[in-house]
Amino acid sequence: MFKKILVANRGEVALRVMRAARELGVKTVAVYSTEDADTYPVRYADEAVCIGPAQAAKSYLVMSNIIAAANTTGAEAIHPGYGFLAENAEFARACADNDLVFIGPSAECIERMGDKSSARETMKACGVPTVPGSDGCIDTVEEARRFADSVGYPVLIKATAGGGGKGMREVHDPADLEAQYRAARTEAGAAFGNDGVYLEKLVLRPRHVEVQVLADDFGNNISLCERDCSVQRRHQKLIEEAPSPALSDDLRHAMSVAAAKAVRAVDYRNAGTIEFLLSSDNQFYFMEMNTRVQVEHPVSEQITGVDIIKEQLRIAAGEPMSCASRAPFSPFGHAMEFRINAEDPDCGFRPSPGAITRFEPPSGPGVRVESYIKSGSKISPYYDSLVAKLIVFGQDREEVLARGRRALDEFVIEGIKTTIPFHRAVLENEVFCAGEAATDFIETQMGDLL
Amino acid sequence: MFKKILVANRGEVALRVMRAARELGVKTVAVYSTEDADTYPVRYADEAVCIGPAQAAKSYLVMSNIIAAANTTGAEAIHPGYGFLAENAEFARACADNDLVFIGPSAECIERMGDKSSARETMKACGVPTVPGSDGCIDTVEEARRFADSVGYPVLIKATAGGGGKGMREVHDPADLEAQYRAARTEAGAAFGNDGVYLEKLVLRPRHVEVQVLADDFGNNISLCERDCSVQRRHQKLIEEAPSPALSDDLRHAMSVAAAKAVRAVDYRNAGTIEFLLSSDNQFYFMEMNTRVQVEHPVSEQITGVDIIKEQLRIAAGEPMSCASRAPFSPFGHAMEFRINAEDPDCGFRPSPGAITRFEPPSGPGVRVESYIKSGSKISPYYDSLVAKLIVFGQDREEVLARGRRALDEFVIEGIKTTIPFHRAVLENEVFCAGEAATDFIETQMGDLL
Repeated sequence: MFKKILVANRGEVALRVMRAARELGVKTVAVYSTEDADTYPVRYADEAVCIGPAQAAKSYLVMSNIIAAANTTGAEAIHPGYGFLAENAEFARACADNDLVFIGPSAECIERMGDKSSARETMKACGVPTVPGSDGCIDTVEEARRFADSVGYPVLIKATAGGGGKGMREVHDPADLEAQYRAARTEAGAAFGNDGVYLEKLVLRPRHVEVQVLADDFGNNISLCERDCSVQRRHQKLIEEAPSPALSDDLRHAMSVAAAKAVRAVDYRNAGTIEFLLSSDNQFYFMEMNTRVQVEHPVSEQITGVDIIKEQLRIAAGEPMSCASRAPFSPFGHAMEFRINAEDPDCGFRPSPGAITRFEPPSGPGVRVESYIKSGSKISPYYDSLVAKLIVFGQDREEVLARGRRALDEFVIEGIKTTIPFHRAVLENEVFCAGEAATDFIETQMGDLL
Repeated sequence: MFKKILVANRGEVALRVMRAARELGVKTVAVYSTEDADTYPVRYADEAVCIGPAQAAKSYLVMSNIIAAANTTGAEAIHPGYGFLAENAEFARACADNDLVFIGPSAECIERMGDKSSARETMKACGVPTVPGSDGCIDTVEEARRFADSVGYPVLIKATAGGGGKGMREVHDPADLEAQYRAARTEAGAAFGNDGVYLEKLVLRPRHVEVQVLADDFGNNISLCERDCSVQRRHQKLIEEAPSPALSDDLRHAMSVAAAKAVRAVDYRNAGTIEFLLSSDNQFYFMEMNTRVQVEHPVSEQITGVDIIKEQLRIAAGEPMSCASRAPFSPFGHAMEFRINAEDPDCGFRPSPGAITRFEPPSGPGVRVESYIKSGSKISPYYDSLVAKLIVFGQDREEVLARGRRALDEFVIEGIKTTIPFHRAVLENEVFCAGEAATDFIETQMGDLL
């Protein structure tokens, strides 16, 4: 195992990685922007190095500063968390060039799965179901029209370099195709410096169901069941749960078999997530692979008893994962995560940064809180607005719903607005409580909050 | 299910019961002494009734005040927590006489198992192994000597009405028998108003292993595996874990079969615990039954996914327990509880009441905290010194040990002395870490802390 690692991130995920490292007896180095100097993860780490000013482009995204910090402190490996450089193949390569282990998959895997169009081709080739779509980029409106006519409307235009909903457009009416096609390319170009787009048949009212995978150098290739992340606002997940209320054991098995094929196809190592669309008639289609740990990984940890971050460290250190002998996994109970953001749900989820005067997280049975906040902490306007992840778990979904209500009612955050009232409202919604939320849930059911 | 229950307790267990009730949609009534008026459980309850001054004898032990509070507020049932009136048959009867459901076993069960001597007889009769001992009370020194000679020294003198180590004496040398016999009777008389004692063969270096049981009105009689509570100081448990590192699957099965026999023998209902001594050669002997929920119940909850307090409410309400279809239970992972007391381990565990100026519990994966404390809370000198229970759980015992160290290091309690440093020291002890602690662990291994 490593003696010392550097955590190239901030906030809750930085703390999460440091806790895992500490439990493995691994020393940690924090890197931080001047804005984050007083945050808890910086105090928690064994060492801390300032890497620049507040703007991420001048600190958390500056590869050379991060690599210099690792070299200076004698760290052997770098955990990128999620976001920032986590899916940046160039960074993974820069680590290797500096004799640092990148705690994640190879640069080649990141590249291959990071390009949505080539990822789709790879999946089709290995027999993982994909949404009927264009083979590669669509370079002209005419080409787009031919494809849409062939599979039928509605269709979805997606940026090949995309993520987070940027450069993505739904087209329901042939008359809108040209305008949406041009808008998607422009947006993609601005966001990613790459205006390539492709088209897919739009699956109506799909659920977002993703399979957590782990693979190591010893031939272990396992899945930790699935997560249902259908509750999204503008393609940003807000609530995730495991297992999915929509899956039978047979469907779970079929999706985990498909995920294992995907892992083998690209010789993937470390933790990753295969995201699928699940149609209302139980057909699932590969959407994309996230080649990193995800915000919502704790719900999988709760229903399997596996510490995913520790397994990442073991795999990156060339050890076998510790949980392989327990596979195949069946869900043990149920778990749900609520992302508590510094946003005002009564004002269109407008960011609400500022000082938190009082922070009292809930506790008791079946409650886990992942947060870097203490009373007196500040939410910076420079970074994403995640304040805390509240994870609740229990014997079954019904218990988890009741526990989520109880825990949200106990959660005290003063000084800023948060999405706690939004989550509390979702837990009173009949469609959600019945386990029937699809990706259109927020707009169709919680519209008065948008 | 009940619409409203009264919680006849204080501190963490009162909050624990209220949380369970809230998750079941049951309203709660807190009762409190003037000393506890500002505590969190009093604010947490839907209603709260003051039942007297600080001294428990004038508030938490005054049955008539508690029953009056239940009648006034329209509560249908009373949960006694642990301690105070939890094992008082008279109170259980007083509830019934006032048309209130006592959330626990029948008064007859409490009586039958509360008298240690009759409990032992009952267990012998139904085939549960017991330590070779006197049949009933020993009324003279001569009788005590005859018994000790017949089973061989060392022997243990125990108060028939006893608990918590009061009126209990070990005799290793025949020359000490008379003095210890008389001392035990005097102490028992003073503590319990009943100076009856009995003798047992003393099992050397036993482990304390107890089986958690649940039984309902529908014939379900299950065990939630065992807890190992060998780390005790003066017969007070300090650390508990589940499963026991000393048990094979066969031994676990045998103990759970014995526990089920005990439950059937007294037609027991609700949650209870059968405490066994486990000798170093893997013989187990019935010690006593606790006819209530125990402080250490969370470790069983973690390895089974069962909410024991909720099951208590369901059973008392005449519903079937919700977890029966999942039995028989095998341990899912491992869990450990550390009792954080307001005591100074550097000064012989002297009580350290006072105001807590800062309270920051640990969090993250595999960490559960049960506490009623917030920054600014006070630890009262009038009640037991429990500040918080830290429960850690994980894939296996090794992970739990590392997680316990991490969580104890994160735990900030300022303003009073606590036993956190003691627990941290135990987690560095080789005997404990090897899973080999017996009930003599503290005196033989942690002697410099006594």
